[in-house]
Amino acid sequence: MRLMTCSRASLALTLLLPLGAAAERPSFEVTSNEVFNPASIAPYAGDHGDVYARIDADLAEHLGELQRWVRQPSVSAQNEGITEMAQMLRDDLERLGFSEARIVPGSGHPGVWGYYDAGAETNLLLYMMYDVQPVNPGDWQVPPYAGELVDTELGTVLMARGAMNQKGPQRALLNAMQAIIDVTGTLPVNVMLLAEGEEELGSPNYPELVGKFEDRLRTADAVFFPFNSQNARGEITMYLGVKGILYMEMEARGGPQGGPTESEIHGSYKAIVDSPAWRLVQGLASLTSDDGNTIMVPGYYDAVRPPTESEMALVNGIAGTWDGQAAARQLGVAQWIDGLTGRDAIMEYLYMPTLNIDGIWSGYTGEGSKTILPHVATAKVDSRLPPGLHPDQAQAMIRRHLDDRGFTDIEIRRMGAYPAAQTSVDAPVVRAAISVFNKYGTTREVWPRLAGSAPFYQFTDRLGLPFVFAGLGHGGGVHGPDEFTVIYPAAGSGIAGLADIEKGYVDFLYALAGK
Amino acid sequence: MRLMTCSRASLALTLLLPLGAAAERPSFEVTSNEVFNPASIAPYAGDHGDVYARIDADLAEHLGELQRWVRQPSVSAQNEGITEMAQMLRDDLERLGFSEARIVPGSGHPGVWGYYDAGAETNLLLYMMYDVQPVNPGDWQVPPYAGELVDTELGTVLMARGAMNQKGPQRALLNAMQAIIDVTGTLPVNVMLLAEGEEELGSPNYPELVGKFEDRLRTADAVFFPFNSQNARGEITMYLGVKGILYMEMEARGGPQGGPTESEIHGSYKAIVDSPAWRLVQGLASLTSDDGNTIMVPGYYDAVRPPTESEMALVNGIAGTWDGQAAARQLGVAQWIDGLTGRDAIMEYLYMPTLNIDGIWSGYTGEGSKTILPHVATAKVDSRLPPGLHPDQAQAMIRRHLDDRGFTDIEIRRMGAYPAAQTSVDAPVVRAAISVFNKYGTTREVWPRLAGSAPFYQFTDRLGLPFVFAGLGHGGGVHGPDEFTVIYPAAGSGIAGLADIEKGYVDFLYALAGK
Repeated sequence: MRLMTCSRASLALTLLLPLGAAAERPSFEVTSNEVFNPASIAPYAGDHGDVYARIDADLAEHLGELQRWVRQPSVSAQNEGITEMAQMLRDDLERLGFSEARIVPGSGHPGVWGYYDAGAETNLLLYMMYDVQPVNPGDWQVPPYAGELVDTELGTVLMARGAMNQKGPQRALLNAMQAIIDVTGTLPVNVMLLAEGEEELGSPNYPELVGKFEDRLRTADAVFFPFNSQNARGEITMYLGVKGILYMEMEARGGPQGGPTESEIHGSYKAIVDSPAWRLVQGLASLTSDDGNTIMVPGYYDAVRPPTESEMALVNGIAGTWDGQAAARQLGVAQWIDGLTGRDAIMEYLYMPTLNIDGIWSGYTGEGSKTILPHVATAKVDSRLPPGLHPDQAQAMIRRHLDDRGFTDIEIRRMGAYPAAQTSVDAPVVRAAISVFNKYGTTREVWPRLAGSAPFYQFTDRLGLPFVFAGLGHGGGVHGPDEFTVIYPAAGSGIAGLADIEKGYVDFLYALAGK
Repeated sequence: MRLMTCSRASLALTLLLPLGAAAERPSFEVTSNEVFNPASIAPYAGDHGDVYARIDADLAEHLGELQRWVRQPSVSAQNEGITEMAQMLRDDLERLGFSEARIVPGSGHPGVWGYYDAGAETNLLLYMMYDVQPVNPGDWQVPPYAGELVDTELGTVLMARGAMNQKGPQRALLNAMQAIIDVTGTLPVNVMLLAEGEEELGSPNYPELVGKFEDRLRTADAVFFPFNSQNARGEITMYLGVKGILYMEMEARGGPQGGPTESEIHGSYKAIVDSPAWRLVQGLASLTSDDGNTIMVPGYYDAVRPPTESEMALVNGIAGTWDGQAAARQLGVAQWIDGLTGRDAIMEYLYMPTLNIDGIWSGYTGEGSKTILPHVATAKVDSRLPPGLHPDQAQAMIRRHLDDRGFTDIEIRRMGAYPAAQTSVDAPVVRAAISVFNKYGTTREVWPRLAGSAPFYQFTDRLGLPFVFAGLGHGGGVHGPDEFTVIYPAAGSGIAGLADIEKGYVDFLYALAGK
């Protein structure tokens, strides 16, 4: 998952397809003037002073728990430490008093299931991932699995693989639960936990894991994924969903219709031999307008559902705080497409599907000149899918468009796909999270969604549950070197340290229980 | 240089550009029914029995000269043995009695100049190349610079780098000249020789070499490049020209107009960030019809000059012998474009300019999925240019087309370019070559040109001279492992061995002199 800190108003969904030149891209009109202000949600007012005191007293030990987790490598891509980490999570759940805690074998790295019966009315499902990305130790200023504390201008941080993504926030939540149990003997909510060890692989088998517990999971009131939601200035941003994705390889090869079938041939034959590279280029080009920014596949935009009234209020809210120019500058981008600004850029970013060329290759790509007619050409293309546009539907429309244009020779290989996930800002679990944020700091922006993708549809669509990924705390270096999470923040930084992160989770669990 | 063994009649040059769908490609009408038959040219009738006898007597020594040459590596790309080979050629010319023989320094590997004053009326310019392609010795069945003889089903061959391309034929010609001089004291023609050591690099500095001798070179009656023109069945094919070429890199990058400028960014930003990869794909796609076979650049076809009457006769001639299906099969191609056959395919192959994608690359091209929006996308594109369409003109038309369509952000980098070269079948030097071929075997096909490219315009256009690359003999493995030329052909093979190759050159020199 990647984040982004980011409109377009016009007449409602209308797709114009002029012959030639630039196409008119449809857009959704923002018809509401309501502005969602996160400060309008009262800060959580409950006080659990004895639990907070326990956290403060045990903080060194709690930090030790985070260190224990990050010191256990669990690289899913390299199958390093996966079994050990799954066992560590299972054992930790047992130690916490989970009545069910077991490793769940399946088609991929095993899952971990846990159930804590608090005899409570509210059922919370925790999503967790116990795997991490690979490391290049030479790029790190500390060994990536040493769990070292490092002093930075943000304060003292835990610098290790998994510190932010996602062992740090997850173990902090378990620490908070431990403190509650130690003080009160139980939890304010019943907790189901279903963790996977393949998130960094794209969660290919999480649907299978969900299937094993589906009836029970449906009894949950909400799904929560602990997360570091603060930026380096301590500002809190929430995202209430993700776009879906369709990731494809599109390929043209010589065949019965023409073109070299076995290997590249001398380029001079182009005069009388069909070119798979031209076919791929032409087939791809048929998919978008000349500027690459409007998808020319019939029906593609029609499937996207318009923003709800409450989503419009969210967009109006973030349009007042988002610095689009700064966001572009940070990316090394001179301007957004069509010179979009403000709310127009936000709407485009969040509500439009994309077709993106992630990679393309064919023939000779080295230095200098080589005159060949390649027999194969391939592109990696992904499409980000806002709610309403399902990947199966998207792929079928692309296939039909190519076929209708005569590009039946272009093969589409699906590399991965899942639909969008969306939770309403009106869901009690969202209100609970914002109320806690407002107690510890300021919730600056609530976005309807990330423009990035994650398979959270398993919770929102399959299980029909509201899903929140949120939490106090700040970190960085996700997927790269020097991954960190702030433990003891510098004075005045506005960032929550480990103690406040855990207290926030305590409050969140009570808030969910209405206590 | 690569060979090809390969019509399209319709109304004369008319370019239709329908909006959308497949474009109508113009073609040249073959308005003549004349058929050129190489057998109509009488076999060379001169008899130089004393010279032939000398060749037979000295054949072992002559083979030794070929071996001496191929044992001297001269890899231009790796600057290996270049000086030694240039000196060897210079020394050989001196030994032959050239009154001028010197190494010519210049911007690249040196040239070699020689002049043999025979006091004759006819002046022949010899083009030679003394460099060879690199080798991968592990791929060879003999050491590539050992000059070993190897028995094959074609007979005993000299297997070594340069055996065919081009040391074998060139040294065989010098052997033939040596035999004439030994027997008669001089040559039947005056000989200018201008050799380069950079042919395998694309002859970047040969124009500079030509410039140093331009006034003298213009006094030549013809230019000749010794060559193995026989196939494995002994059949002789001649090519009277080459297409020109424009080799470009076309590139799109993020910039002030939008798109990532510094590095790839997360693919989800496609919603509001321009994509250089899409721009390249769209810009390229604008250059051809959907099938990739018709160039949509205005004026591109208009510049090509139609076939002459005598070229039409050549085309009608080869249309009777060329096996298009076999040629396609050999390339692994199921059918030529648009299902063209026979004369239509030949005309398309020889008279149409091409736009070919030699390579294209952008972003992530490895295994699996990576969601990025690349900041740069590049394609290698070459255009083969029949006579009439100059590369400068071609590039300007492509640039104007892209600009007119709004693709001002696509950069064109020229990697190499030169125009076509064409010699008339009616040129005395061509008639001389065919008459000699008809004495030793059968000239099966005379093609107006190769569809491939070589910078022979230096001779035909700059110097205004007829140019022939031809000769008896057969070889293979050019640019690859096990390069060879047949020395002692198997009985009944129809291939000329070294003795006949040299006798053929003797006859050719006399034929040129009208003797």
